[in-house]
Amino acid sequence: MKKGIFITLEGTEGSGKSTQIQVIEQYLKDKGRKYLKVREPGGTPISEDIRHLLKTPRSDDNMCDTTELLLMYAARAQLVNTLIKPNLENGVDVICDRHDLSTIAYQGGGRGMDMQDIKAISNVVLHGFKPDLTILLDIDPIAGMQRARTRGELDRFEQAKMDFFIRVRNTYLECAKADPEHIAVVDGAMQKEDVSKKIFEILDKLYD
Amino acid sequence: MKKGIFITLEGTEGSGKSTQIQVIEQYLKDKGRKYLKVREPGGTPISEDIRHLLKTPRSDDNMCDTTELLLMYAARAQLVNTLIKPNLENGVDVICDRHDLSTIAYQGGGRGMDMQDIKAISNVVLHGFKPDLTILLDIDPIAGMQRARTRGELDRFEQAKMDFFIRVRNTYLECAKADPEHIAVVDGAMQKEDVSKKIFEILDKLYD
Repeated sequence: MKKGIFITLEGTEGSGKSTQIQVIEQYLKDKGRKYLKVREPGGTPISEDIRHLLKTPRSDDNMCDTTELLLMYAARAQLVNTLIKPNLENGVDVICDRHDLSTIAYQGGGRGMDMQDIKAISNVVLHGFKPDLTILLDIDPIAGMQRARTRGELDRFEQAKMDFFIRVRNTYLECAKADPEHIAVVDGAMQKEDVSKKIFEILDKLYD
Repeated sequence: MKKGIFITLEGTEGSGKSTQIQVIEQYLKDKGRKYLKVREPGGTPISEDIRHLLKTPRSDDNMCDTTELLLMYAARAQLVNTLIKPNLENGVDVICDRHDLSTIAYQGGGRGMDMQDIKAISNVVLHGFKPDLTILLDIDPIAGMQRARTRGELDRFEQAKMDFFIRVRNTYLECAKADPEHIAVVDGAMQKEDVSKKIFEILDKLYD
């Protein structure tokens, strides 16, 4: 049986990821493809429990970067081994909202963790397994945040967060530049409909 | 300030670990040492939550080996970075019930995970940080289980578990043989009092 196709969607906050993942879903429905839609971190009961651990703010313990990184990969290992790979093997396409590239961009680029450390763990977990296609919705984080708000100026705290997202964005773009065959960059600052149109073109090329 | 001393206790089930950790504690009290006692996986609020994830039986998802391994190291990273290292830096001794050697013995030896994979992750998390002394309570797993029960014979399921524990024990012993300066093997099949006496001798050597 022909294997399924593995598509991931990446981007910083405000890039329109949640809107466009529905567009990808609709495309696959229209094509009559069987598909599974999952998100990271999460997607299986254990991975969702790990997501809860990662996302819940707490006052009793301050999560260190290495713990965060390992929890991300623990959730990913469970999702890839128990859901993504078995579905692909059965000919089912998989759309994943965030995947390995998010860790490289956020923990590596954003938090400044050692890229060699991240790659060592990625290698243990994925052994080179990667998406057939990654769509990166690219947007200037400042424009993204300003677009999502009415007033224009950012305060000092928001500016610090912006520096983080600028590093995330730059890392995303560097990775895309290094692997243009697998990572397609789409300008997320365009009108929604134009973003979707661009994504359709990319998917047409993939499925033809 | 002189740094604290980091002591870990290792051994398979039924080796007498929980009894002897109290003996080590009493020894440090008698010496007038400040100390912290912790256990792995666990020891911090986040690490205890991870322990809960690791230990709770569940019917909705079957945890894969890589997920288990990463959760172990996530809990360890949090414990080492937020409690063990800061306490040692402040001159406080740390006694830890299980540590990195457990992962090598159980996940590596017992479950047969790739030792290179385990070492790659260990290296990211610990960067060579290791106990000043590990006390390994060694016991033949069959004798250990038979000692803990009244009837002698093991059924087929118990025998399979025994094969697992035999691999764990052998890995423990191989590691001890490779690093006799840091890992002291104590015969856990002896009478409790004799085990404690032996541990006192080892601690006397460490603290003199």
